[in-house]
Order: sequence, then structure tokens, then C-alpha cells
Amino acid sequence: MVSYGQNVITGEHTMSTQSSQLCPRFHRAVELIGRRWTGAIIRVLLGGPRRFNELLAAIPGISDRLLTERLRELEHEELVMRRVEPGSPVKVIYELTCAGAELQDSLDALGRWAERWIGVPQEAV
Amino acid sequence: MVSYGQNVITGEHTMSTQSSQLCPRFHRAVELIGRRWTGAIIRVLLGGPRRFNELLAAIPGISDRLLTERLRELEHEELVMRRVEPGSPVKVIYELTCAGAELQDSLDALGRWAERWIGVPQEAV
Repeated sequence: MVSYGQNVITGEHTMSTQSSQLCPRFHRAVELIGRRWTGAIIRVLLGGPRRFNELLAAIPGISDRLLTERLRELEHEELVMRRVEPGSPVKVIYELTCAGAELQDSLDALGRWAERWIGVPQEAV
Repeated sequence: MVSYGQNVITGEHTMSTQSSQLCPRFHRAVELIGRRWTGAIIRVLLGGPRRFNELLAAIPGISDRLLTERLRELEHEELVMRRVEPGSPVKVIYELTCAGAELQDSLDALGRWAERWIGVPQEAV
């Protein structure tokens, strides 16, 4: 296995099942989805497009302000698109881009891991 | 698809491929591996046990202090074990627990996603 350090120094770029060669990208990806609430927002949007208030209701504990902030970051990262449908009032709809939708495998695997290993906080389930 | 909100309210606990029912656990898992450097540390340890200095060398940019802090958190979460081998000086070795090792599927999937979608910062690869 090529370590992160070796990778950066040698610039090696090969494919492997371990795929640890791509350190800077992997590092960015894991911190991207791990940012507070980001994983939860993407997970809800994997179920289909949602309006702002639907997202707010679907994620217990998130505030209006934080949801706005995270959605802006996700738009900036091109993982989420914001679509405005005309009408009165206008409907603002959030949905995943192709890149966002392709996080499904990873988040599903993490969900299975969590089912198996994470204790349930506060008897919620 | 059952939303996060419904899940917490009804306490529903069923398995599905979407597995979005397990909100509190999933939420905890994603923020656990997304904490700054945590994903990177686990990724390196997926390649086998490592000494502290090997971890430090393998993760460009992490400081001594932060690596110590993250390893303590990971021990507390029971994802990493610390093993002391006698000798002079003693060897301190870090390795994944079963729970930690089972993160491989999820992190590999995230690595594949990153290969496909994340731009490479600073021409490192």
C-alpha cells in the first residue's frame, strides 16, 4: 500500500482497490461530506428533490440559518442545484447534481456500517 | 422514502437499501469520519497497524498535537486500538478495531467518488 506521504512526493497515480493513492482528493471528499449536517442533507436529497422547508423538517436539529449556509456551500461545490419554479409564491427546489447523486454508494455503505456499529443516541430508534 | 423527521418521531426501524431510517446513527457516523483528519487516519490504518511517527509521515499537513488528539478520540470511539510493545524505547502501535476496519467499504466508495468528481488541489497528483 502506498502511503499518503509517498503519494504526494512521487505524484504516483495508479488505480487500486485500496485507492489510497488519491490522498488530496479523498481527504477533500471525506471532509466535504463530514461537515456538520452536510451528509444528512445529501442523504435526504438522495430520496428526490426537496423544498427548503421539507429539508428543514426532515433533518431534526438543523436551524434555518445553518441549512441555508450548508445548501450554499453544496451549490458552490456543485453537489446540489437550486431550481426556482415560478408561481406565487415561487417554489425553490433543491436537488442533487450528478456528482451529488453518485455519493449514494458511499453514504449507503456508511449507513450500513452505522446500523451495525453505532449506538443509538437517546433511544430515538 | 421515510424522511429523517418521520423516523425520529415514529421510531421506525426497518432495513432498506436506502437505509435512511437510521438517521441518528447515520448522522453520527458521517460526522465521525468527517471530523478533520479522521478519515485520513482511518484510511492509512486500513493498510495495517502503524506507529505514531509513521502516521505522522503518512498524512501530510497534520500536526503532532492534532494527530494525538484525533487518535485519542478514535480510541474513545473504539475505532482504533493503541498497543504498547515492550522494549527500549517501547513501541506504540495503532491499529483498527473490527468496527474501524469495517469502514473500508464506505471509504473505498468515497475514494472512487473522489477520483471521479473532485478536482486535484495544487497539482499534487
